[in-house]
Amino acid sequence: MKQIIQANKDRYIQELQDFLRIPSISAMGEHQDDVRAAAEWLANALEGIGMENVEIVETKRHPIVYADWLHAEGQPTVLVYGHYDVQPADPVELWDTPAFEPVIRNHKLYARGATDDKGQLFLHIKALETLMEQYGKLPVNVKFCVEGEEEIASPNLPPFIEEHKEKLAADAVLISDTSFIEEGQPAICTSLRGALAMELSVETANSDLHSGVYGGGVPNAVHSLVKLLDSFHDDQGKIAVEGFYEGVPEPTEALKEEVASIPFRKEKTKKDLALEEYFGEEGFTFQERTGIRPTLEINGVTGGFQGEGIKTIVPSKASAKISCRLVGEQNPQKIFEDINRHIEAYKPVGARLSLQQSVTANPVTLDSSNTMIQKAADAYEKVYGVRPLYPKEGGSIPIVEVFSRVLQSPVVLMGFGLPSENLHAPNEHFHLDNYLNGMETVGEYLLSLNKES
Amino acid sequence: MKQIIQANKDRYIQELQDFLRIPSISAMGEHQDDVRAAAEWLANALEGIGMENVEIVETKRHPIVYADWLHAEGQPTVLVYGHYDVQPADPVELWDTPAFEPVIRNHKLYARGATDDKGQLFLHIKALETLMEQYGKLPVNVKFCVEGEEEIASPNLPPFIEEHKEKLAADAVLISDTSFIEEGQPAICTSLRGALAMELSVETANSDLHSGVYGGGVPNAVHSLVKLLDSFHDDQGKIAVEGFYEGVPEPTEALKEEVASIPFRKEKTKKDLALEEYFGEEGFTFQERTGIRPTLEINGVTGGFQGEGIKTIVPSKASAKISCRLVGEQNPQKIFEDINRHIEAYKPVGARLSLQQSVTANPVTLDSSNTMIQKAADAYEKVYGVRPLYPKEGGSIPIVEVFSRVLQSPVVLMGFGLPSENLHAPNEHFHLDNYLNGMETVGEYLLSLNKES
Repeated sequence: MKQIIQANKDRYIQELQDFLRIPSISAMGEHQDDVRAAAEWLANALEGIGMENVEIVETKRHPIVYADWLHAEGQPTVLVYGHYDVQPADPVELWDTPAFEPVIRNHKLYARGATDDKGQLFLHIKALETLMEQYGKLPVNVKFCVEGEEEIASPNLPPFIEEHKEKLAADAVLISDTSFIEEGQPAICTSLRGALAMELSVETANSDLHSGVYGGGVPNAVHSLVKLLDSFHDDQGKIAVEGFYEGVPEPTEALKEEVASIPFRKEKTKKDLALEEYFGEEGFTFQERTGIRPTLEINGVTGGFQGEGIKTIVPSKASAKISCRLVGEQNPQKIFEDINRHIEAYKPVGARLSLQQSVTANPVTLDSSNTMIQKAADAYEKVYGVRPLYPKEGGSIPIVEVFSRVLQSPVVLMGFGLPSENLHAPNEHFHLDNYLNGMETVGEYLLSLNKES
Repeated sequence: MKQIIQANKDRYIQELQDFLRIPSISAMGEHQDDVRAAAEWLANALEGIGMENVEIVETKRHPIVYADWLHAEGQPTVLVYGHYDVQPADPVELWDTPAFEPVIRNHKLYARGATDDKGQLFLHIKALETLMEQYGKLPVNVKFCVEGEEEIASPNLPPFIEEHKEKLAADAVLISDTSFIEEGQPAICTSLRGALAMELSVETANSDLHSGVYGGGVPNAVHSLVKLLDSFHDDQGKIAVEGFYEGVPEPTEALKEEVASIPFRKEKTKKDLALEEYFGEEGFTFQERTGIRPTLEINGVTGGFQGEGIKTIVPSKASAKISCRLVGEQNPQKIFEDINRHIEAYKPVGARLSLQQSVTANPVTLDSSNTMIQKAADAYEKVYGVRPLYPKEGGSIPIVEVFSRVLQSPVVLMGFGLPSENLHAPNEHFHLDNYLNGMETVGEYLLSLNKES
């Protein structure tokens, strides 16, 4: 593997740069054609390395790219998932070089999507190309299922998976869309929190009112909203919504030790972020609070006059964005109903309430002792000389739970990013060492899955 | 009076239209020259009717216009206050005709400033002109002190009054910048609440953080802010800031009766404003809550992500605009300190707080039995056939308390507006009947103050 990757690395990097030049921003209507162009580019790349049955599958918005190579009779099948869409580049003025003009500085490739997820996706294609060149075939059966809507919460992929579960059936789902703990320390994420996003709106009158004339005598929409928002937590940082913690497992000592084993530079982070203090649910560490405990965060709030100076009004409308991270057996739909009951119970006098639900994702836990994950760990060790850790991620990749549940396959989150690579932020980049070593790791992994190996 | 006003009314209305054409918006830097043009126009108008010592007095921002006529030896002196600046016209698209192109529809004059306060100010000048024409002189001594900064909270007038209290000395301060109870029912306001405006800002980190990575483990600026904002009131609508109610008088039965005597269409207002319920301090009526009780209102709140869709962040900054209405002996500076102590006592973990003070005004109560007010009531009765009521206004005109305290003179709030005239809103207008009857009322009032009358 290594020699072929070394011999071809310039071309492998140039091809990724071509992929990164396509501004496939799924959230922005004006980039609709670019998203499609990225799907077509990807389909061509898959065909180019010998993948078969390459399809661009239409959805209500951005297409899914499917491909397979199923000639490894009697061997396991691996389904590779990734996404070819990217986040918007805003704020563009904070980029040192334009987001869609990839450049290499200090052996890092700078561009929107470099690490999330075009670079991490494309290294799989180049790994297969390398295997093909070395062996004339692949050691296992491989399927690709790549979406263009990950950054807009994958609205069309779950039904596609449900409808095509036989076509997508695999012995493992392989995903590179996560990060190392830090440089030199690989990680296979084995837990992702679920998610529930909502918007809570309050209305108290049909227009803002003069505070001199009505102030003190009519309900104030901002007062009503802050009362509700403040009721979601108690003073110990616990979520005060009845029923919220149902299905949240009490962490075992073993799990606590596993969580504590993941390095975390507490004082440095505190200083870097200018935090006065850490704060969260009483009785848990920072790593537990952010990795294996559920949360309810207000992501934003808006209401009444917000300009310069003063406007003495009683606001009639106010709203807040709220999102929960869920763990264990928590179900987003049930939590939504719990929160709905909570706001009705705490409804301030004269407030008309509305709670709109948007993203939902079930939490998922993966068993690190599964063979498919242990072989991935072996591959990392072979290439990097270090065994990966198994962190519990606080974030959510909703589709992981869907693959796990619908296909009944182990999901292997074999990430090659670094936490410092500015994903979703200006100056996103990807370390080229990890791009090339990632190819080798994926290649070694697939080779190790071959039953005759 | 009446005949001369009738004979000249077309010209009196045309001149007011000229005044209204000047977009003297004090809050907007680009209208600086227009504000000055309005001051000059006003100075000319005062000179034109025979006022003397007309001065345009420079301040740090917009000038004060002074003028006097002091030839009524042995007679009382009346100081007329008003303002020649106006509110911005936003939202301009909601005006039926342009804000600075005055038009008459249904005997109402539509323009920004028509009722607040150019129309109500200019009727004094036309009243004096009428008296001059009828008698060749004025029945009392008259001074004018007109500012161009009322709509930006009069930053430069209080020091001017302090420095020139002999020059401005008067037996009564006459102000027309308030409203009737409703058409046909005049009012002399005898109480104005004080005011204190503030901005409360919370910061918890140097940037917004990813809620998947940090959520649940670091302070959230919006959580911190809503906790503080929610702590300002208890569930009975009382303000929970220690010391806040010091100096607030317990209303006497007589005062309660006086307040209750002011008509208020409770059910109609509820329907018009689409209120579900009235709400306020327990134990008080709507009229008491909005007229003679102090308040603390959140005028606006902002923090974190407020766009379309979802952004799963832990916000690092949030802020709120807050304003209080004060009564009795409440002192804005002391209340500010009380609130500062309150937020320090309730300071959420990890929150950096800042409380900035802006507008302050002391509350003021005027004695309705004062001769200067009773003679004004007689003048209303003579012209309108109805005695005025004496409402307690919930709003604040900060300068009233300054005139009252510094000049030690009774202030007579002889308003000619109607509550329905859209002040500070699109389609502001002024009833021409009240413009012309207002001149006659002012004329009759000044005649009644002459000791030989």
